[in-house]
Amino acid sequence: MEGKSLDGKTIIIRLEIDTRTVGFGAAAAALETAGGDIIAIDVIQTGRDKTVRDLTVKVAETSSIDRISSTLSAVPGIRLVNISDRTFLLHLGGKITIQPKTPIQNRDDLSRVYTPEVARVCQAIHADPSKAFTLTIKRNTVAVVSDGSAVLGLGNIGPYAAMPVMEGKAMLFKQFADVDAFPICLDTQDTEAIITAVRNIAPAFGGINLEDISAPRCFEIEQRLRDELDIPVFHDDQHGTAVVLYAGLLNALKLSGRTLAASRIVVCGIGAAGTACTKMLLAGGATNIIGVDRSGILTADHTYDNPTWQWYAEHTNPHRISGGLTEAVAGADVFIGVSAGGILTREHVLSMAPEPVVFAMANPEPEIRPEKVEDIVSVFATGRSDYPNQINNVLCFPGIFRGALDCRASTINEEMKLAAAEAIASVITENELSRMYIIPSVFNTRVVEEVRRRVIDAARRSGVARRQRE
Amino acid sequence: MEGKSLDGKTIIIRLEIDTRTVGFGAAAAALETAGGDIIAIDVIQTGRDKTVRDLTVKVAETSSIDRISSTLSAVPGIRLVNISDRTFLLHLGGKITIQPKTPIQNRDDLSRVYTPEVARVCQAIHADPSKAFTLTIKRNTVAVVSDGSAVLGLGNIGPYAAMPVMEGKAMLFKQFADVDAFPICLDTQDTEAIITAVRNIAPAFGGINLEDISAPRCFEIEQRLRDELDIPVFHDDQHGTAVVLYAGLLNALKLSGRTLAASRIVVCGIGAAGTACTKMLLAGGATNIIGVDRSGILTADHTYDNPTWQWYAEHTNPHRISGGLTEAVAGADVFIGVSAGGILTREHVLSMAPEPVVFAMANPEPEIRPEKVEDIVSVFATGRSDYPNQINNVLCFPGIFRGALDCRASTINEEMKLAAAEAIASVITENELSRMYIIPSVFNTRVVEEVRRRVIDAARRSGVARRQRE
Repeated sequence: MEGKSLDGKTIIIRLEIDTRTVGFGAAAAALETAGGDIIAIDVIQTGRDKTVRDLTVKVAETSSIDRISSTLSAVPGIRLVNISDRTFLLHLGGKITIQPKTPIQNRDDLSRVYTPEVARVCQAIHADPSKAFTLTIKRNTVAVVSDGSAVLGLGNIGPYAAMPVMEGKAMLFKQFADVDAFPICLDTQDTEAIITAVRNIAPAFGGINLEDISAPRCFEIEQRLRDELDIPVFHDDQHGTAVVLYAGLLNALKLSGRTLAASRIVVCGIGAAGTACTKMLLAGGATNIIGVDRSGILTADHTYDNPTWQWYAEHTNPHRISGGLTEAVAGADVFIGVSAGGILTREHVLSMAPEPVVFAMANPEPEIRPEKVEDIVSVFATGRSDYPNQINNVLCFPGIFRGALDCRASTINEEMKLAAAEAIASVITENELSRMYIIPSVFNTRVVEEVRRRVIDAARRSGVARRQRE
Repeated sequence: MEGKSLDGKTIIIRLEIDTRTVGFGAAAAALETAGGDIIAIDVIQTGRDKTVRDLTVKVAETSSIDRISSTLSAVPGIRLVNISDRTFLLHLGGKITIQPKTPIQNRDDLSRVYTPEVARVCQAIHADPSKAFTLTIKRNTVAVVSDGSAVLGLGNIGPYAAMPVMEGKAMLFKQFADVDAFPICLDTQDTEAIITAVRNIAPAFGGINLEDISAPRCFEIEQRLRDELDIPVFHDDQHGTAVVLYAGLLNALKLSGRTLAASRIVVCGIGAAGTACTKMLLAGGATNIIGVDRSGILTADHTYDNPTWQWYAEHTNPHRISGGLTEAVAGADVFIGVSAGGILTREHVLSMAPEPVVFAMANPEPEIRPEKVEDIVSVFATGRSDYPNQINNVLCFPGIFRGALDCRASTINEEMKLAAAEAIASVITENELSRMYIIPSVFNTRVVEEVRRRVIDAARRSGVARRQRE
């Protein structure tokens, strides 16, 4: 919640004013003292002694809201009923709705979409279950599944509080790729229970997007569901991030005249995202990746209790470098941060190879702010929308699911993820490519189209598409 | 699938015609010979030697479709690509869609419905979970849950084949009561697994509509979920049927000058629906109900393995009558059939009290056809749309959930069900009431409105409403 992103924020304040005690002018004056700028007034209810009004108020920053609240509450005769801002108003009653594709206007319509005629459609699917893809919502519907254990930067806030994120994701699926997505927020954080629940609700869905499930449970949940279901299962926090990072890195390396195979790449933060990014880089041909976490550089010279770290140590760091972040970055070509804000210094970056590539993707505060090193780096990317080169999952999940659904892929495999990354990178032409523009905007409509096309090709090539022609 | 309901059926036939071998006239002639009437032709694709055309064809009956298929396939040079009828075409790609309530047009919109601003909404719900009702889809969303074990008259066809029914139900929820409903078809028929799955997915939903789950599992599943969840759980096959039956019976008894308390009522078919109807009649004041199933009249003189039957025997049949259907109906005022087609004879009805009330609700074939006894009964009702007085669940579930959601009821209790039944019955005025019109049409818009109003009142009176004012 940076002050910056709240610039020009509009809030709506509902006041009940006891007109025997106080005039509206006093309320207006209190508001302005506290830093609010009234831009509209709606009278909601008016009685002999009381009036209820909604004031639309512009505020400069979030802290003004608290000041307005306390100032108004201190005025005798004014009761502050509530303060809503546009964000909260947009969430009233939720953000998605379910609509019939055709209206039921008469008994004839009713008899076709419901009993008795629907029985023939049921029988057709019973006789040939693959018909579920043509005769039900399955072919265009994805479950957005979370247990609320690792939501945004908020941590373990549970399934109820996770809903607004999953509904937002469903909106993005529809808006960007015409995918019908429905939020499934699970009231359990038990690995087995999550696996069972998702497996049991799968028939309606053509794909499962796992979201905001904490590590290490997310690894087992995803792997088991991939094994057990015949529809794509995709943990967006891992693979969405990895795909978009890889897309950005392809263009960044091109600009800085490096190759993936020859670059020394530091991955900082070996959680779900860091591991997925590393696997993607390895699949793409990287040979010299060094992983570093709070406890230092992961190396095959040690044994780790965490099986992910053990795997990581065995598959990276070929020269068995040891030490901490400082040792890891010295001489490195690329820094990829999926860790914590502010941990990388200008000295660290100065110790890297000349004109290095830095992807500082911690949110909301990057590992290092771009302004500190823009004079010494070749390309800089973050996870934020207020700097150039935002590594944003929204570039990946709509298109990759669109492609997977359209060819009825049974899974989303490495080939499809690489194809998606190449597609995203390819949207920026040679002429457009610059150190300030290595990754397209999420509003670039060519992204979904290009990702879809290449993902379908990759699914067909790798033998996981169940539909060969459009 | 009565021939009757297919009268004037329209099908669409896609033909690939080898124009070197055969002309279109031959196809048209073959079609007409087989009983089809071409009403439209669309050219889909045309090449040098081949043409693909969609023919919209009217047929008199289902059997014509098979005849058309074999006749056309026998013509050299004609390839029958597929035959779709309007019902199947309506089901292509499923019948519902998920829509964002507001478009995401720019970065500002994106930042409100998704990160970073959505985090504040998540935090508000985390601080006060009851806010899930205002800030997520929960307040207007119902899960339509089935395991596909008892779908329509089709039996255990499984979750994939059950989807079209659940999607149809979701359409009806929206169309009739503006409720957002989503189909959850479970890939398990294990009682515990179903209970766990529904409990785990509950956070997104304000209510659970159980559907087409076979007895006796449906009883335990519903009861356990009612106990464990703080949102309404309603097994429509039981309670929806019971509510609408009771509504119809209220008006039928009024017409035939009887009271519920003084009537001898036979319930034939003691499954899920029969038991729920009986409980509703008892709650409404009935004192003399006799239940009869294949094994005969249920009586407290026997002990039953089936716990539902044991309960039934202990709470009905006060005079401990024994025997079969013949003994049950002799002298009875009311016959309620939720059993099997054709089991009631004119002699049975003649043995009842003069001018009895007969509700023969077996589907698609009622226990006895109305035309066989219309001269000797006072009121006759069925489950079919092609006779007067259709006892149709669609009269109940949209309005009862609308009411329950609007007052944030924690459950749907007996008071609310009785109120719903009275509401449905009340839509027909004294002046309108006749033996051919005891129950309103599902398209009567007053039904949902009236059910909603009375259900909210009943929820508030009985202390289960969590929202006291609109």
